[in-house]
Amino acid sequence: MKRYDIAVIPGDGIGQEVVPAAIEVLEAAAEIHGGLAFNWTHFPWNCEYYLEHGRMMPEDGIATLRGFDQIFLGAVGMPGLVADHISLWGLLIKIRREMQQSINVRPAKLLRGLQSPLREPKDFDLIVVRENSEGEYSEIGGRIHSGEDQMAIQNAVFTRKATERAMRYAFELAQTRRNHVTSATKSNGISHSMPFWDDVFQAVKADYPATASSSIHIDALAAFFVMKPHQFDVIVASNLFGDILTDLGGAIMGSIGIAPAANLNVERQYPSMFEPVHGSAPDIAGRGISNPVGQIWTGKMMLDFMGYPEIGGLILNAIEAALSDGVKTADLGGQATTREMTDAILRHLRK
Amino acid sequence: MKRYDIAVIPGDGIGQEVVPAAIEVLEAAAEIHGGLAFNWTHFPWNCEYYLEHGRMMPEDGIATLRGFDQIFLGAVGMPGLVADHISLWGLLIKIRREMQQSINVRPAKLLRGLQSPLREPKDFDLIVVRENSEGEYSEIGGRIHSGEDQMAIQNAVFTRKATERAMRYAFELAQTRRNHVTSATKSNGISHSMPFWDDVFQAVKADYPATASSSIHIDALAAFFVMKPHQFDVIVASNLFGDILTDLGGAIMGSIGIAPAANLNVERQYPSMFEPVHGSAPDIAGRGISNPVGQIWTGKMMLDFMGYPEIGGLILNAIEAALSDGVKTADLGGQATTREMTDAILRHLRK
Ligand SMILES: CC(C)[C@H](C(=O)O)[C@@H](O)C(=O)O
Ligand SMILES: CC(C)[C@H](C(=O)O)[C@@H](O)C(=O)O
Repeated sequence: MKRYDIAVIPGDGIGQEVVPAAIEVLEAAAEIHGGLAFNWTHFPWNCEYYLEHGRMMPEDGIATLRGFDQIFLGAVGMPGLVADHISLWGLLIKIRREMQQSINVRPAKLLRGLQSPLREPKDFDLIVVRENSEGEYSEIGGRIHSGEDQMAIQNAVFTRKATERAMRYAFELAQTRRNHVTSATKSNGISHSMPFWDDVFQAVKADYPATASSSIHIDALAAFFVMKPHQFDVIVASNLFGDILTDLGGAIMGSIGIAPAANLNVERQYPSMFEPVHGSAPDIAGRGISNPVGQIWTGKMMLDFMGYPEIGGLILNAIEAALSDGVKTADLGGQATTREMTDAILRHLRK
Repeated sequence: MKRYDIAVIPGDGIGQEVVPAAIEVLEAAAEIHGGLAFNWTHFPWNCEYYLEHGRMMPEDGIATLRGFDQIFLGAVGMPGLVADHISLWGLLIKIRREMQQSINVRPAKLLRGLQSPLREPKDFDLIVVRENSEGEYSEIGGRIHSGEDQMAIQNAVFTRKATERAMRYAFELAQTRRNHVTSATKSNGISHSMPFWDDVFQAVKADYPATASSSIHIDALAAFFVMKPHQFDVIVASNLFGDILTDLGGAIMGSIGIAPAANLNVERQYPSMFEPVHGSAPDIAGRGISNPVGQIWTGKMMLDFMGYPEIGGLILNAIEAALSDGVKTADLGGQATTREMTDAILRHLRK
């Protein structure tokens, strides 16, 4: 029996509802496997914690998390309560950075049982590999002058190391799939960082001569996510472009509420963090109607990363089977509660 | 009879096909109006011109253009022939900047006769007001070190003046429409420029208490363009976000080939430039099959701006009537040539 220590951070809003649901499913999956068990340790770090303690996590929070195998996180942020730059940068982005989770992997595929908002979605199945540590999300910048003369400067920072790491990850991943990598660029309008991005892509792709590749500007690429998403296999994108494309990926699947994500420390020196694409959705939180599928699918990605792709596959099958039964939460046009959706998935998993 | 001097730059690729088509339509519209005439002066500035002269336009090109009432441009760029940073920054972006065309207005609406790729597109009708002079498209930045240590830094520059100008334009525009402004932000991830953007938005909206407004992060906003575009009226966005949203706008309409745009010098000190959202599409250029609708609709926006909204309206009606007849170019799933599409629009215009 292998035991894994998982740090659980439900966080804010619907994170509190979907994380317990996903843990139930992961527990059931472990039982089915038979040779694997989880120790879940919960951390109450969120905006309420902030209001009480003046910080999103204790000073030794990162050190504490380093003792775990993986981190399973729901969502962070309560804009009405705590400013985003405090809550997100004090917990979510802080963990991404300090754990060097420099690759964010986010699949989007047409699930059985779900209706895409696209008229003819074909059978798309793509993965966005998002650079997760730098780029447009750099902390460097500030403001000068005041009143009419005020201005803000934001520095986007692209290092060869991080850019290349994301691209290599994308090429390696593509080799296990349909062997095509698309680079999301905007070098026609963004004149320093994106030509650099293109140059690194040229250099990396030379090492993968058997893999087909192309570069597409982010504006056209976003449009292609609507017009012909089935044409894409693996897409490598900067932090910002990856962020935008993966919400779009959720949308074309049918709901952002089902989109999963994995913040990977690919070197496996620190824990990785598994956290769905959606946020804390304060508007629907507390009513038991949130969609647990994004968090459950995110749990499947954790199993994949831990070396259990077979039971990961069972979970995705169970999700698709439940949706095919017509069990759907409100965001998918149905009336199922979080509980009912979870039960339907559990039922199929245990079959 | 009022005479207008229009500088015509067909540019590259399909620009050479759609601009003449749009001029035919504008001529017909002027004839119908009776009190208005155009003097078209053509400039052969494009990538071929560059190969011959070593620059995209003559040294006094901008000074020459300043003598015109408006500029009517097709598309610029032939990536295989001339690097984008030369062609675009030497002509398209150069004109936007030197003519202080700091607002880029780009509508997206469900046209009669067109099938959206969305299953239930409802009746959306939105306008993106894109800041067109700075932001993520600043020329400031560069590279340092080489090999493994190389990095690039790109500065995004947001001034209060340009940010506020775009926002005020959006609020004024909204007052003539459904009176709602959405700000495209990303202040939860981009920590200096976007909080500044939000602050300016707060300040500007205080001056328009009767106008409803909201701020949405660009990732969610892109997803909403797919899920519920009918909820938007006017959207104000940075240079990059506006670029992405408007290709998405084209996509949900049915093709980027129909999306129009106006680069406005709102102070009317210099000519404005009317140029559709789509690019030069070298892959289909020269075959007479490109979609002229984007350029023709762009011509309608020129008429609107010049003070002839009634005949502008006639043009849009004629476009919708032609599409409703089933006359469609390949990008819209039809087989009409550029000529046939144009003729169908002319026929309805002259009815
Ligand atoms: C060609 C490119 C520089 C341009 C832009 O990004 O502004 C285009 O995409 C547009 O939207 O007009
Ligand atoms: C909450 C926000 C900072 C975050 C991001 O932009 O990275 C979110 O949108 C995501 O995609 O995980």
